[in-house]
Amino acid sequence: MTEHILAANPTHSVWDRSLAPRLRIAPGDEVQIECVDASGAQVRPGMTVNEFLTIDRTRVHALTGPIWIEGAEPGDVLEIDVLSTRHSGWGWSSVIEGLGFLKDRFRDPYLFHWNLDGESTSSLAPAVVPLRPFLGVMGVARAEDGSFRTRPPGPFGGNLDVRELCAGSCLYLPVYNPGALFSCGDGHAAQGDGEVCINGIECPLDVTLRFHLHKRQPIAGPIIESSLSAAPDSPPDSWVIVETGSDLTAAARAATGRMIDLLAGRWGFSEVHAYILCSVAMRLRLSQVVNEPIHTISAAIAKQILPDRQLFPAHAH
Amino acid sequence: MTEHILAANPTHSVWDRSLAPRLRIAPGDEVQIECVDASGAQVRPGMTVNEFLTIDRTRVHALTGPIWIEGAEPGDVLEIDVLSTRHSGWGWSSVIEGLGFLKDRFRDPYLFHWNLDGESTSSLAPAVVPLRPFLGVMGVARAEDGSFRTRPPGPFGGNLDVRELCAGSCLYLPVYNPGALFSCGDGHAAQGDGEVCINGIECPLDVTLRFHLHKRQPIAGPIIESSLSAAPDSPPDSWVIVETGSDLTAAARAATGRMIDLLAGRWGFSEVHAYILCSVAMRLRLSQVVNEPIHTISAAIAKQILPDRQLFPAHAH
Repeated sequence: MTEHILAANPTHSVWDRSLAPRLRIAPGDEVQIECVDASGAQVRPGMTVNEFLTIDRTRVHALTGPIWIEGAEPGDVLEIDVLSTRHSGWGWSSVIEGLGFLKDRFRDPYLFHWNLDGESTSSLAPAVVPLRPFLGVMGVARAEDGSFRTRPPGPFGGNLDVRELCAGSCLYLPVYNPGALFSCGDGHAAQGDGEVCINGIECPLDVTLRFHLHKRQPIAGPIIESSLSAAPDSPPDSWVIVETGSDLTAAARAATGRMIDLLAGRWGFSEVHAYILCSVAMRLRLSQVVNEPIHTISAAIAKQILPDRQLFPAHAH
Repeated sequence: MTEHILAANPTHSVWDRSLAPRLRIAPGDEVQIECVDASGAQVRPGMTVNEFLTIDRTRVHALTGPIWIEGAEPGDVLEIDVLSTRHSGWGWSSVIEGLGFLKDRFRDPYLFHWNLDGESTSSLAPAVVPLRPFLGVMGVARAEDGSFRTRPPGPFGGNLDVRELCAGSCLYLPVYNPGALFSCGDGHAAQGDGEVCINGIECPLDVTLRFHLHKRQPIAGPIIESSLSAAPDSPPDSWVIVETGSDLTAAARAATGRMIDLLAGRWGFSEVHAYILCSVAMRLRLSQVVNEPIHTISAAIAKQILPDRQLFPAHAH
């Protein structure tokens, strides 16, 4: 196992499988990855809303990568273990005209600065917000040729904005290209389901990730094995199916279907028993509803409900 | 304060403000309410799926009530404190052709019997499902004249199927008619978000409820003050806005808007700060997606994030 360091710059702001890798690693390796905030370090502490309106939006999400994982091929699964996260004590949230879930009600631009300290922040008095830092964007290069802006997520991951992806959790992504070509960014010190105003607590967030490869294990989209017991006010450790789509109902239905497939495939439930188990014990959440035109739905089953299983037989490295 | 007992029968299976009250109580009173299961005691332990297919579906949800609360008038809020719940050790879940979130995938009828014992059930091996008994249906008579079947919920409550409504929690409902005319039923020993197969763990569930009245406090729809710390695998105690509608996105947007109004109105946040707080800390869930044509969305903020507040100044009784 080798430990690598990858600085943020030069960042990139598109998914494009022709981008040259900035780092090559072997499965099992760990990488300390520096991630600037989603604005690409254009937003700074003390910035005014008028200054904020002038930033170059084409640089969002300012991702770090791509990372080439040796031996990764289409049809494999890339496992990303989030080992640790480090914010820098400051973050921001904004309201931007034309964006956000309530864009018709909130039209005036606004910029809020957060002081981050310890396990929660009280800078939005009288609220005390628990911090659960995670990367809004972790993904592999898309299957298609071309250059795609990063706002919509997809089966490749990307701008999932799923709040479970904190330190301790593990993300499984399908691989679509040789080397997988992993990139990440969009640090959030905290984020609600929905991310309704368009932002979490946006912040620079350095992370340490460990990568594993599972050969020839096709999956239809992202799966998370969450482990947040250390974080305050946390949901239980869970298996989480992540589904993306433009229609909320269809995405929720697809997530439920994939959870049934997982329960039947890995735990041996009959399909109808898996369906009933989902009906009495699954959580179903709108993880983000603002990355137009694509929403993220999460379907989760608490791990304590099921016998321990490794999702894939063993790390192949 | 008086303690009352209300037996289940005769049950009713419509919302109709012309139904005669079966009990009259004063605000502050407690009522032990017997609720048969949603089938109206037609489903029995050991019943086969073929027998299940012959039950009279017009009797679902077999509600207990109505209860007349003295002094309740349109524009008031009825507070329902769930003091305790008692299941009888048995429950059922079914698959019914033409119903359920995955009705195209699951067409064959199925009936599953649950053995309920202690705080969890292992009767769906190898799963161990935590029990969190609650009533799927609690509501007041609708504002309109007429007789309405009970499947779709609404601002009056009804078939909300929100899993937070366990013992310890409190439901606030708008009052539309003199006396409020409260009814309840549809016991669930456990239910996931979505209730995707059409059932939770359906069961007879006797409950003790306490009723309070808040005069001239109009609210747009149900609000829950949840307190589940005693239950296993629980979400944090929360303020929960419950919204119903046929379009998931519109209902989620309305729930978010009502949460912002609550935060601004009761905690003094500016509207934009309330919007940002929702964006970084709110949970947004699909509580049920099967009570066609109306879905239930829940938007929740953990109580620990906010200073203590009484939602309404004081109990007026």
